[in-house]
Amino acid sequence: MQRFINAIFFAGIVTIVAFAGPVSALEEKLHAQLDELKSASINSSLSYDIIESLTTEVGARMVGTPAERKSVEWAVAKMQALGFDKVWIEESQAPNWQRGELEVTLTSPFLHKLVALSLGNSVGTDTKPIETEVVKFNNLDALKAAEPNSLTGKIAYVAYSMERKKDGSGYGNAVGARVNGAAIAAEKGAVAYVMRSVGTDSHRFAHTGVMRYKEEGKQIPALALSNPDADLLENALKRNKPVTMGIASSASGPLNDTVTIANVIGEFTGSEHPDEVVTLGAHLDSWDVGTGAIDDGIGVGITLAAVHHIARLKHRPKRTIRVILFAAEEIGLLGAKDYVARRNGNMDNHVIGAEWDFGNGTIYKLAPGVGENALLKIKEFAEYLAPLGVEMASTNNAKGQSDMSELGKAGQPAVNFYPDGSDYFDYHHTENDTLDKVDTEALKINTAIYTTFAWYAANSGIDFRK
Amino acid sequence: MQRFINAIFFAGIVTIVAFAGPVSALEEKLHAQLDELKSASINSSLSYDIIESLTTEVGARMVGTPAERKSVEWAVAKMQALGFDKVWIEESQAPNWQRGELEVTLTSPFLHKLVALSLGNSVGTDTKPIETEVVKFNNLDALKAAEPNSLTGKIAYVAYSMERKKDGSGYGNAVGARVNGAAIAAEKGAVAYVMRSVGTDSHRFAHTGVMRYKEEGKQIPALALSNPDADLLENALKRNKPVTMGIASSASGPLNDTVTIANVIGEFTGSEHPDEVVTLGAHLDSWDVGTGAIDDGIGVGITLAAVHHIARLKHRPKRTIRVILFAAEEIGLLGAKDYVARRNGNMDNHVIGAEWDFGNGTIYKLAPGVGENALLKIKEFAEYLAPLGVEMASTNNAKGQSDMSELGKAGQPAVNFYPDGSDYFDYHHTENDTLDKVDTEALKINTAIYTTFAWYAANSGIDFRK
Repeated sequence: MQRFINAIFFAGIVTIVAFAGPVSALEEKLHAQLDELKSASINSSLSYDIIESLTTEVGARMVGTPAERKSVEWAVAKMQALGFDKVWIEESQAPNWQRGELEVTLTSPFLHKLVALSLGNSVGTDTKPIETEVVKFNNLDALKAAEPNSLTGKIAYVAYSMERKKDGSGYGNAVGARVNGAAIAAEKGAVAYVMRSVGTDSHRFAHTGVMRYKEEGKQIPALALSNPDADLLENALKRNKPVTMGIASSASGPLNDTVTIANVIGEFTGSEHPDEVVTLGAHLDSWDVGTGAIDDGIGVGITLAAVHHIARLKHRPKRTIRVILFAAEEIGLLGAKDYVARRNGNMDNHVIGAEWDFGNGTIYKLAPGVGENALLKIKEFAEYLAPLGVEMASTNNAKGQSDMSELGKAGQPAVNFYPDGSDYFDYHHTENDTLDKVDTEALKINTAIYTTFAWYAANSGIDFRK
Repeated sequence: MQRFINAIFFAGIVTIVAFAGPVSALEEKLHAQLDELKSASINSSLSYDIIESLTTEVGARMVGTPAERKSVEWAVAKMQALGFDKVWIEESQAPNWQRGELEVTLTSPFLHKLVALSLGNSVGTDTKPIETEVVKFNNLDALKAAEPNSLTGKIAYVAYSMERKKDGSGYGNAVGARVNGAAIAAEKGAVAYVMRSVGTDSHRFAHTGVMRYKEEGKQIPALALSNPDADLLENALKRNKPVTMGIASSASGPLNDTVTIANVIGEFTGSEHPDEVVTLGAHLDSWDVGTGAIDDGIGVGITLAAVHHIARLKHRPKRTIRVILFAAEEIGLLGAKDYVARRNGNMDNHVIGAEWDFGNGTIYKLAPGVGENALLKIKEFAEYLAPLGVEMASTNNAKGQSDMSELGKAGQPAVNFYPDGSDYFDYHHTENDTLDKVDTEALKINTAIYTTFAWYAANSGIDFRK
C-alpha cells in the first residue's frame, strides 16, 4: 500500500515539474482543448437550463406515474436538440407501486397531525386504519434485539438520526432501517413500522425511499416521519405515558402488475473508434414528491451539457461518448441492471464510465478504478483538475457510483467523482428537492469537470483496463 | 433632535464614568440583584422547557380550533405551577374561520401539484373548483393599476418576493399583497387570488396569514404558494403559453358565528405598590399549520420564565408584574383590543410594558417610549445590558410591539426590544414553525433581558410617563 502511495506521489511530482517547465506540443494541444471545454462549461448556463427544463416541463417522474413516460419523451427530444448523433431508448419492466394517500396522527396523550411519507413499496392499511401504541427503539439493532412477539399489535418506531458528513457516509448507517426495518418489525408482531426520516435536515419534510419485505414475511405499512415530527413524537414518549398513533394509508404495496420503464441513451459518435464508448450516467427517474432537481436533475443536466459542449468543438473526439439516463434507479438500479443484462454482461467496448448522482456540492475528489498502467494518465488528468480543488484518491478500486456500479461490476472501468455531499441529505427524497436548491456555481464547475473528463477519456488512446 | 441625542450621549458618558469608578451602595445592590436574575436566566432551560411543553402538549392553537381552548387551560395551569400569585382569563368573541382543505394544481402547459395555503379568512371554491388562466403581476401596485374588468374570469397572481432584513422590515413591503390583494383582484374581475408567500425561505412551505375582504366587495379565494412553487409557476409563465391553474378549496370564508377566545393573565404581586403593574406580553394563539414554537411560543416561554425567576428571589419587587398571554393576535390583535376595551382604555396603572413576538434572534436594540425624565433610567438599564450586545435606540417613540401596541396606543409606556429577525420570516406562519427551530442560546440571553427588565421596572419607583 505504501509503495502504491509513493508511486502516485512520484507521478504527481513529475507532472508538476512538467507543468512548471516547457510542455510538449502534444501536451499543449491537449491542455488547450481541455481549457476550451472548461471555459465553455464555466461560461454557460446550459446544465442549469436543462435542469430547469426537466423540472418545469416534467417535474416529478416516479416509476409508475404518467410523468415517467413524459420524462422519456423529454429526454429524447432534449438529446436530439443538443446535438447527439444517435438517441434511442431501451425499455424494460419494473414493479408498479402507487403511493396513495397517508394520514398519520399522534392520538394520545396529545393530538397532532404528523408529517410523514410512505416508504416506496409499502403496503397501506386497507380500509381499516390502525390506531395503537408506539414502542420506540433507538436504532435498527435495538429493534432486531426485541423478543419475538414483543411487538404484537404495536407500532415499532426507530429513532435513529442520520449523521451529516461531507462524503454522505452517514447514509450507510441510516438506510438499513429504511430498507429492512418493516420486515424486522413484522417478525416481532408489529402492525406498522415508523421511522425517523433518513435525512440531515430539520424541516418538516419526510424522506421517502425504497423498502423491502421478506419473501414470506408479513407486510406491514412502513413510513418515515419528518425530523421535527420525530422530535415531537419522542418528546411525547418522554412523558412516560402510553403514546398512540393513528395511521391511514392507501399505499398500494408491491403490485403484481409491472410498468414499462426506459433507459434513454444518446451518443456522440467518435471519429476514429466509434465502437469504443465512454459512458456518462445519471438517472432520469425521481421520487414523486419533489421535482427531482437535485436527485437527479443535476446529473441529467451535467451529462447532457457535457456532450453538447464537446459537440461544438471543431474536432470530434476519437471515441464515442454515450450518455445513459437510467430508468428506475430509485427502486433498485433497475434500468442499469437491464442495460447490463441486454448486453449479456459484456462491457468490453465500454472504455470507462462516470455517473453523477450525488447532488449539489463541488467535486473535491476523483477516485479511479482502472488498470495499473492507466493510472498515470488518470493522475495527469487529476493534476489538470487540481486548480478546481480536486484531489486524487490514494485508492484505485472505484467501480462506479449509483447506476454505474452495475456496469462496473460487469467490468467497465470507472472514475468516481466525489462532490461535497454535506447538504445532499437535507433534500434527498423530499418534497423540497426543487430547482431553487441547485447551486449554480458548483454546477458550472462540476459540468466543466465531467465535460473535460469525457473528452479526455474519449480522445485518448488509453486502455483503462490495463 | 440634535439636542436630544446629545442629552442621551451625555447621560451615557456619566453612566460609563460611574461604572468605571466606585458605585454607590444602592447601585451595587441593584446590580447584584440584576446579576442574580441574569445568571438564573442564563443558567436555566426554563423558557425552552415551557416552549417544549406548549408545543408538545398543545401544539398548533388557532382561534376556532379545539386546541385554542386547550392552550388556555395549559397556560392557566403553567402559570400556577410557576409561582404566579393570581391567574385569570378574560374571554371575548372572535370571528370563526375554518381552513378546510386546499388543492392547487398547475394544469397547463405542465402538470404540477403545487404547495399552497389558504390565507386566513379566505373563502373556498364552494362545490365547484376553479380552473382558469393565470395573469401575473410583479407586485400589488401593478395589480392595482390593472384596468377594470381586465381580469374577468382569470386568476390574479402577485409575484412580489419579500426581502430579508435584520429588523424584519421587508415584511411591511410584502404584507399588503397578502391582506388586500384578493379584494383588489376581485374588483378587476378575478375569480381567485394567488400570491408568492410572504416569507424569506426557499423551502416548500407556504406562509399563511390573515387577509381581508372589502365590506361590499366580491369574496374570491385567496392563497399563497410556497416560494419554490412560485418559482415553478413563473418559469412556466416564461414559456409564453397560457398557464392555467386549478383550485379546489373548502376554506370557510368569514363565518357569521363567533368563537370564544381568552387572554390568559397572571400576576406576581408587588410588595409595595401592588396596583401598579409592569406588563410582559406575548400571544398564546398561533396559526394551525406549525406548532407555533417561534410564533409565539418563544414569547410565552420568555415571559413566564421571567416571572418564575423573579418569584424565586428573596424579596418581591415593589410593583406587580403581569404577564398577558393575548388571544387572537394572528387575526388582528383581538385579545389586546379586548384587554384595553374592558378597561375603558384606562392604562393609568400600567407602568410600562414589553412584548415578545419576533422570534428567534438575540436582542440587539432597546427602543423606549417613555417620558423625558424616565429616559435616563432606561439609559442606565440599557448600559447594564450593553455587555449582552444591546444598544439603545436614539429615538424615544416606542408604543409597544404586536399586541402591546394596543396598550401603547391607550397610553401605556413601552420598551421595544429588537431581536435579530433575519430568519424570522423563514418560518413565520408555516408548517415549519416547530420546536427544533428555537435557538436555545439566544433564548437564554433574551430571557435574561426580559427578566431583568421586568424586575428593574417593577422594583424602581420610576414614573415612566414623565
